[in-house]
Amino acid sequence: KIDGDRLWQSLMEMAKIGPGVAGGNNRQTLTDEDAEGRALFKSWCDEAGLTTGVDQLGNMFARREGTDPDALPVYVGSHLDTQPTGGKYDGVLGVLGGLEIIRTLNDLNIKTKHPIVVTNWTNEEGTRFAPAMLASGVFAGVHAQDWAEDRTDAKGARFGDELDRIGWRGDEEVGERKMHAFFELHIEQGPILEAEKKDIGVVTHGQGLSWTQVTVTGKESHTGSTPMPMRKNAGLGMARILELVDDIAWSHKPHAVGAAGHIDVFPNSRNVIPGKAVFTVDFRSPDLSVIRDMEQRLREEGQAIADDMGLGIHFEKVGGFDPVKFDDTCVQAVRSAAERLGYTHRDIISGAGHDACWINQVAPTAMVMCPCVDGLSHNEAEEIHPEWAEAGANVLFHAVVETAGI
Amino acid sequence: KIDGDRLWQSLMEMAKIGPGVAGGNNRQTLTDEDAEGRALFKSWCDEAGLTTGVDQLGNMFARREGTDPDALPVYVGSHLDTQPTGGKYDGVLGVLGGLEIIRTLNDLNIKTKHPIVVTNWTNEEGTRFAPAMLASGVFAGVHAQDWAEDRTDAKGARFGDELDRIGWRGDEEVGERKMHAFFELHIEQGPILEAEKKDIGVVTHGQGLSWTQVTVTGKESHTGSTPMPMRKNAGLGMARILELVDDIAWSHKPHAVGAAGHIDVFPNSRNVIPGKAVFTVDFRSPDLSVIRDMEQRLREEGQAIADDMGLGIHFEKVGGFDPVKFDDTCVQAVRSAAERLGYTHRDIISGAGHDACWINQVAPTAMVMCPCVDGLSHNEAEEIHPEWAEAGANVLFHAVVETAGI
Ligand SMILES: NC(=O)NCCC(=O)O
Ligand SMILES: NC(=O)NCCC(=O)O
Repeated sequence: KIDGDRLWQSLMEMAKIGPGVAGGNNRQTLTDEDAEGRALFKSWCDEAGLTTGVDQLGNMFARREGTDPDALPVYVGSHLDTQPTGGKYDGVLGVLGGLEIIRTLNDLNIKTKHPIVVTNWTNEEGTRFAPAMLASGVFAGVHAQDWAEDRTDAKGARFGDELDRIGWRGDEEVGERKMHAFFELHIEQGPILEAEKKDIGVVTHGQGLSWTQVTVTGKESHTGSTPMPMRKNAGLGMARILELVDDIAWSHKPHAVGAAGHIDVFPNSRNVIPGKAVFTVDFRSPDLSVIRDMEQRLREEGQAIADDMGLGIHFEKVGGFDPVKFDDTCVQAVRSAAERLGYTHRDIISGAGHDACWINQVAPTAMVMCPCVDGLSHNEAEEIHPEWAEAGANVLFHAVVETAGI
Repeated sequence: KIDGDRLWQSLMEMAKIGPGVAGGNNRQTLTDEDAEGRALFKSWCDEAGLTTGVDQLGNMFARREGTDPDALPVYVGSHLDTQPTGGKYDGVLGVLGGLEIIRTLNDLNIKTKHPIVVTNWTNEEGTRFAPAMLASGVFAGVHAQDWAEDRTDAKGARFGDELDRIGWRGDEEVGERKMHAFFELHIEQGPILEAEKKDIGVVTHGQGLSWTQVTVTGKESHTGSTPMPMRKNAGLGMARILELVDDIAWSHKPHAVGAAGHIDVFPNSRNVIPGKAVFTVDFRSPDLSVIRDMEQRLREEGQAIADDMGLGIHFEKVGGFDPVKFDDTCVQAVRSAAERLGYTHRDIISGAGHDACWINQVAPTAMVMCPCVDGLSHNEAEEIHPEWAEAGANVLFHAVVETAGI
């Protein structure tokens, strides 16, 4: 069994870097705080006797040798970047849970047949640079590296430039590493496990995602002296489309969700009718045909709303992935680990996207989930109990060691 | 008659300071660009032999002496600050039109009985620091000076600190100057004069304004893993209230307008359901009872929307003024000047707020309006024809000289 106290202490230590304003974290990807978090993680990997490699997108790989020189490594990990008002566990638990496995193996002096590599994937959150899971996506061959480096944040800074700036660009070619398997431990970020009092979620699938950035164009004009019939109010057009998004998601209940988290209007002045509104619609479902239907309805009915109001509208897909089915053998390794350790568990579909969703395309992959309080995540108040973290890491430990062989 | 070419040249010269991105201006109040615009105006006042005073809120007063040492000055002017994506004429025409009167009087070697003072009022636009017409409001005794100085912009910078920073805080007590009369020339910012082919609008009234800042609070959570029934989406609540604002304004057609130009959601991340939305509702009407009704409906029906969605809501009045009736004698001076000069004209109600609306409370006041192309303002594409500017300044000249006496 892993050392739950040590894991918790490391989680708390990492949470000191990039503190938020309400007890959580703001350690967004490729910021100075991200660099500091990476350095702390690397120092811990060094202490644990691991060899760290970094690829050209800043993905970090900390390796513990195996006994079979020909065996591909078992990878384990997640991400250290956070939302602007994020929690202390989202991603971090998966990385430090991986490190805890290594520390435990060292303590017990156990050698595995396959090497084990703990990873920290760059820009999982996608909040600063869309899309989410960017660097694991390049690793899996889903995106081109150049394209990823050209992503820009809201202030126009390029991903590639920011990576250089914080000094975490490595030499390794992205995706050159081959994996025997990949395991990711993550908090559920939803309410199911806690409600059903399950210690462990055995993640069999991940729901698919579609991000469409919508730009509505009207005409900037004076809020006081422009008569109502002459207005082309892009903010009002956006409001109607936000309602549409909600209607579309509910129409597929309970198999879909939809919302817009990113909303900007221009010029954003109290006495100027918005001439432009830009917002990103996030639709998800475990069913690909539902996602396609939602995308299409957004485009068709959104266009009709804009036409009706004399507004321009433009749709751009800025991220997404199809629903994922994880590898049966790896999933079974997670399930039987939970069983063996006596934890209550259930199969679950991940509501969020994870690096594992991309890595699943290039290696046998599975995920372990543990509950989080009130299902709350992407919120500084995100919380888990130390026992939950410990149970998750124990299941991860057993699944990884079983897969890596002794 | 004034020199239309010289006036136009000065307008073009001023427009070089704080250029926008699309042919207009971004010379927001108390920025470095504002300071540069003020310095240019002062240099022109110096050249014209005027004595410039500055009060403790940065309001500028450039005085040409009269022949009667006991006579109170006739004031004329407007503002040099612009919207973030503003036009070249909104406000500027009124200040430089005032300067052109002085230059013309100098050319013709005319001495007036009352002194004439050209003013530039600080922060008319209200886009950086709410409310609009802030410093003229303090001058008129509507706001306390301390309160005005404590206004903050979106980045948290204080009005008073920014005034010190750009070096335009003067010694004069705000409002200590007494006026014989005040005249403001301004572009209409609406479509009426152009549509009716009138050279001049004789402004008899100004419609009233109410700005209510609305804060909707929900709960930040994950866009993917939070089930639809558990969401508290502050962005969706905002969308419904934006529709309500539109409905309320239309319900008073044609005597009211309503919109929100300022909209921010937090944390503004693609995969976080907005936990907070802050936006400012701008309602206007020439009829005070209509404004009161709209404010009340916003609060009542907005509250009902929030309650229904399990959201919190908070309303704060951040600006406003009652409908204004300008001084009969000053209005008649404008009307008869237009008549005498052979310009087509009509009485008009100002759709926008102006410094004149506040000064009207402490001095006999009137306004001259000239058309603008397509009624477009608060847009970089704001445009007027040189003849329109010239006609406006000629009417201003005659009204001011008549009032100042020869
Ligand atoms: N786990 C997580 O929050 N990932 C971010 C990508 C997503 O929005 O699902
Ligand atoms: N004239 C003008 O645009 N003033 C700004 C105040 C307002 O919004 O009416």
